[in-house]
Amino acid sequence: MSDQGYGASAKRLEEHIEALARFNATPGRGITRFSYSEQDRSAREYLMGKMAELGLEVSVDPVGNIRGRFEGSKPGAAPVLTGSHIDTVLYGGRYDGVVGVVCALEALTVFRERGFTPVRPLEMVVFVEEEGVNFGSGMAGSKALVGLSDVETMKQLVNDDGVSMYEAAKRAGFDPDSMTRRLIAPGDVHAMLEIHIEQSLVLDTERIPVGIVTGIAGMKRLRIRIDGQPNHAGATPMRYRRDPMAGAALVISAVEEAAAKKALPTTVGTVGKVVCSPNVINVIPRSVEVFVDTRDVDPKGMDAVVSTLESTLERLSRERGLTCRMDTLGEIEPTLCSKRVVDALQGAAEQREIPFMRMTSGALHDTAVLAGVTDIGMLFVPSKDGRSHVPEERTELDDIRKGCDVLIGALVELTRTGK
Amino acid sequence: MSDQGYGASAKRLEEHIEALARFNATPGRGITRFSYSEQDRSAREYLMGKMAELGLEVSVDPVGNIRGRFEGSKPGAAPVLTGSHIDTVLYGGRYDGVVGVVCALEALTVFRERGFTPVRPLEMVVFVEEEGVNFGSGMAGSKALVGLSDVETMKQLVNDDGVSMYEAAKRAGFDPDSMTRRLIAPGDVHAMLEIHIEQSLVLDTERIPVGIVTGIAGMKRLRIRIDGQPNHAGATPMRYRRDPMAGAALVISAVEEAAAKKALPTTVGTVGKVVCSPNVINVIPRSVEVFVDTRDVDPKGMDAVVSTLESTLERLSRERGLTCRMDTLGEIEPTLCSKRVVDALQGAAEQREIPFMRMTSGALHDTAVLAGVTDIGMLFVPSKDGRSHVPEERTELDDIRKGCDVLIGALVELTRTGK
Repeated sequence: MSDQGYGASAKRLEEHIEALARFNATPGRGITRFSYSEQDRSAREYLMGKMAELGLEVSVDPVGNIRGRFEGSKPGAAPVLTGSHIDTVLYGGRYDGVVGVVCALEALTVFRERGFTPVRPLEMVVFVEEEGVNFGSGMAGSKALVGLSDVETMKQLVNDDGVSMYEAAKRAGFDPDSMTRRLIAPGDVHAMLEIHIEQSLVLDTERIPVGIVTGIAGMKRLRIRIDGQPNHAGATPMRYRRDPMAGAALVISAVEEAAAKKALPTTVGTVGKVVCSPNVINVIPRSVEVFVDTRDVDPKGMDAVVSTLESTLERLSRERGLTCRMDTLGEIEPTLCSKRVVDALQGAAEQREIPFMRMTSGALHDTAVLAGVTDIGMLFVPSKDGRSHVPEERTELDDIRKGCDVLIGALVELTRTGK
Repeated sequence: MSDQGYGASAKRLEEHIEALARFNATPGRGITRFSYSEQDRSAREYLMGKMAELGLEVSVDPVGNIRGRFEGSKPGAAPVLTGSHIDTVLYGGRYDGVVGVVCALEALTVFRERGFTPVRPLEMVVFVEEEGVNFGSGMAGSKALVGLSDVETMKQLVNDDGVSMYEAAKRAGFDPDSMTRRLIAPGDVHAMLEIHIEQSLVLDTERIPVGIVTGIAGMKRLRIRIDGQPNHAGATPMRYRRDPMAGAALVISAVEEAAAKKALPTTVGTVGKVVCSPNVINVIPRSVEVFVDTRDVDPKGMDAVVSTLESTLERLSRERGLTCRMDTLGEIEPTLCSKRVVDALQGAAEQREIPFMRMTSGALHDTAVLAGVTDIGMLFVPSKDGRSHVPEERTELDDIRKGCDVLIGALVELTRTGK
């Protein structure tokens, strides 16, 4: 069966994006739609209404993840899932998460319209609480779905108003206590596909509409603490100093140099946070903490950054009399996308002559969470100027349509047989 | 007249230091004695009592500076002043300021004991509000004395409790409104001498008890703001970045290198404060502000630091696409100590065979404020491990005694004639 004729409707995609953007707690200041909020409820109702119109069998799990099942000709076969999330950061944009949800909806709409019946069931999924901005932990919905999070965890995640994710879910009418087991175990699902905005500059800079993700970077987060000797900035000659700020500068430069030159082409390293104490203009600091985030699809890249830092710290200690300490704050293993899913996506792009590039994802998404239980694949569409999590977040409608067309092709391919 | 026989009493110095340390708002947590506080009032009473016992003519000006006059044989001659301050930082030490006050008291005590009558009058001075920690502006008392500050300024200096320096002075029984003119104009005073703890490492490291200050460094304070492109730390490949933190690291390194290697041996440069926005571990920052403090007794040294920074910022802009801006936050001209006063101090040290080194002061003191109206000179005594403004601040009693002996010799020399 060829899917040559199946094309997404830009008009419908636009309508859905517009509709969801109206469910917004901060009109005029970007989009704010926290999970379990009034705006979230309305957006969910909108989507569940559209899913019901398509004749999907809609279910909502105890924490609020929505699934809509499009039955296949072999009902017992493991389904192929596609979707994303609709929660946003505070003052976020219209596209993050939403693109993956509306493309899933559009794909199923096209299938229904064309009378296409897959062999395997297809499921559209809308994850709850991906951003982690409100309750402080990302991908909490997908984690609960695969058993990586439980009710106890939800009770401990508390927002700025002192309300736990657990309590917020209950107030919104969900029953998290009944989430007693993971709903998706290995083998339950054939594959998970997600379209997401890239949230970075590569596709926009290269003017390529679609990125096929081959792997999702792992991450290492480090805290480097450098202690020196606090002293009066005026009264202490340079040769008597043990200045942790001067040491911190060398660490920051080392992170950049290691990631850009010594490690792999896929490695990134960032110092996004620095804490200086006492942070006063006329005092040589007592201590400076440098927070490092390094990511790579290949652990060797991160290892190279870490070992560069180890030797930098050793040098700071030896040559400058500074006391240095490096702690790992968090660590996530890289995830490779399934070759089968990547091939399906690439085949669909080639068949439709949609320009694409293979790339890795430096950010984490719900789909990465599902990698533990199924084969995964992701598509990226460009973010204008790489901007995301801001009101100016933008993706061209035509790029979303192209991404959706690639998704449609891959879904056809992956549901072709029940084996 | 020889002062060979005049020696300070370590015992009396110790008693005074002990006595003043008891007037303390934070027992067990160092010494806290803010101007106009209860503890300040008690310390002032103690000192004025001792000054009265010596037969000094004690006066307190409308903002609270205390002066005690030891009449000379030529009463109309311009007096020689010596003293320091008794206010402290929060949780400070026992020696900062206090050493200069008790050495002044001890010098006059020795003179009285020995029946020495100078030709010129001698005045002991206790400045109010030197630290500037409570009301936010240093050397406020000495500035008022020489007309560099007025009642309006005192009304604008407000502490954390919302009380202005003006209001605090009134509550303490002073009458700042009557401070309508400067009390010391050029020519009124023959010379000003101050002993102060070094507040740095040089004397302690070199094991030299006395530093004769030849100049007080000027200061330039700069704020460098670097704007880049904020982006997701994971999703943005290294080659697409415009990272202001990486730029800030190069600026911090440039400050150190310029001060330590490119400028003069007397130049210092410090980055004590950094403000990163948004300062989140997984976001390439939007902007980083780097605060620079550079000091030197020779303006050429500071100019060298500034010009190095200008070319560093130009390079950041050209090579990294960062937007850089440098603002001057404050500027103070260097002050040279009077050759006459330095010679008197050095002569006294040599005559008494007290080891000394000539040095510059990187910190500002009340005496620097008086440089506009009279000849000045300063002596430093060692700070154990260079520490100051902390409970552990310490200076050996024997070093204080040696410093006091040098002060005594210089006072004898400078009051020898009335010309």
